[in-house]
Amino acid sequence: MTDSIDELKQRLRRFAEDRDWEQFHSPKNLSMALIAEAAELVEHFQWITEAQSAELAPEKQREVELELADIFIFLIRCADRLGVDLVKAANEKTDINEGRFPVERVRGVAGRGSDFEP
Amino acid sequence: MTDSIDELKQRLRRFAEDRDWEQFHSPKNLSMALIAEAAELVEHFQWITEAQSAELAPEKQREVELELADIFIFLIRCADRLGVDLVKAANEKTDINEGRFPVERVRGVAGRGSDFEP
Amino acid sequence: MTDSIDELKQRLRRFAEDRDWEQFHSPKNLSMALIAEAAELVEHFQWITEAQSAELAPEKQREVELELADIFIFLIRCADRLGVDLVKAANEKTDINEGRFPVERVRGVAGRGSDFEP
Amino acid sequence: MTDSIDELKQRLRRFAEDRDWEQFHSPKNLSMALIAEAAELVEHFQWITEAQSAELAPEKQREVELELADIFIFLIRCADRLGVDLVKAANEKTDINEGRFPVERVRGVAGRGSDFEP
Repeated sequence: MTDSIDELKQRLRRFAEDRDWEQFHSPKNLSMALIAEAAELVEHFQWITEAQSAELAPEKQREVELELADIFIFLIRCADRLGVDLVKAANEKTDINEGRFPVERVRGVAGRGSDFEP
Repeated sequence: MTDSIDELKQRLRRFAEDRDWEQFHSPKNLSMALIAEAAELVEHFQWITEAQSAELAPEKQREVELELADIFIFLIRCADRLGVDLVKAANEKTDINEGRFPVERVRGVAGRGSDFEP
Repeated sequence: MTDSIDELKQRLRRFAEDRDWEQFHSPKNLSMALIAEAAELVEHFQWITEAQSAELAPEKQREVELELADIFIFLIRCADRLGVDLVKAANEKTDINEGRFPVERVRGVAGRGSDFEP
Repeated sequence: MTDSIDELKQRLRRFAEDRDWEQFHSPKNLSMALIAEAAELVEHFQWITEAQSAELAPEKQREVELELADIFIFLIRCADRLGVDLVKAANEKTDINEGRFPVERVRGVAGRGSDFEP
């Protein structure tokens, strides 16, 4: 059975091919498009509190949903152009994180990765 | 059968719960972590050409792979906290994009969404 | 008398010329370097509260100071390559903002620019 | 004589005070607004080549000018809230960079800072 993320990757590849947009979709350019979309998400949250960001009104929730979609779309495109399996990479990175951030050491403490390095 | 992305969502939720990090994972904060990871991807590409970005040396490729993983991880976490189904949202957004960017109108022309608006 | 920001612009131009780095400093690339530095600032604040972000410990304060410096450096470089007078542009934009956000209309209300459009 | 950047800082402080917006202008929130503006700059350049980014049409040039202005505005606001002297910090950081990137070592070679570390 095909995974839903693989189907999406195929669909987005066809979308770009049909429009002859692959020529613009270098990893460099896609990283720019990706961060521009991530910023639109940030923009929704910049003047509201953390608590407010967890309880969005329906209209706002829909807008945020579509921003997340845009990020996901360019993330999949970028991974596709670089031949990266996103799910595999995320699982590998989580394996690494489990080693870097042992429960007993970091429980309840937030920090940047470097804050926890020896 | 569970989709691979659902399994990952569950794994990342447990990872945060085990470390008592859910308290830091407001959508606002997660949007910040997400864009910080997107920027690490951008950083890899900032001084190289588009062509070079498509032909990375193996060591660089691995680093980029793990940056994509980090972005994916925070995207999944953010969507989880907001109750958003990423695959569904990305498909809906692609439906919208197919209407906004008809093949005959945009073929071979890159632009920001607003450039194509009437 | 030369303005301090003009002196800085000259110094940074020489810094790039001495290293033969002007070839890498296209506006496109500089925009990437700029956002990568902005993200390092964001990273300092992502897991802390708004209140904590206003009361940084001395060591953290120094790190944040140097992140602001990095952003300023690439902003000046980008403006220089594009022939933009930053101070003039910022004053013009503030003129525009004073028209867009009249005190009586927006007092005490935060929002994105588009939220205040008619 | 007052430096142009100091005048701008005062003007922007009054702009926020007049609108009772200081309450939203925590360093955390301002870092988000800053990166959102940086992303609007990136968006202008994401599908064009480096060469094209250096030769913008007049209308595009004006748009880019105002994006640079927005970044500068939030950078000044963020520095003001944190009590940072931007020009001083940028000069100090350039002192550091001159030590990190000696001409004879990095001439004509682009890289991330970490690429040049011993």
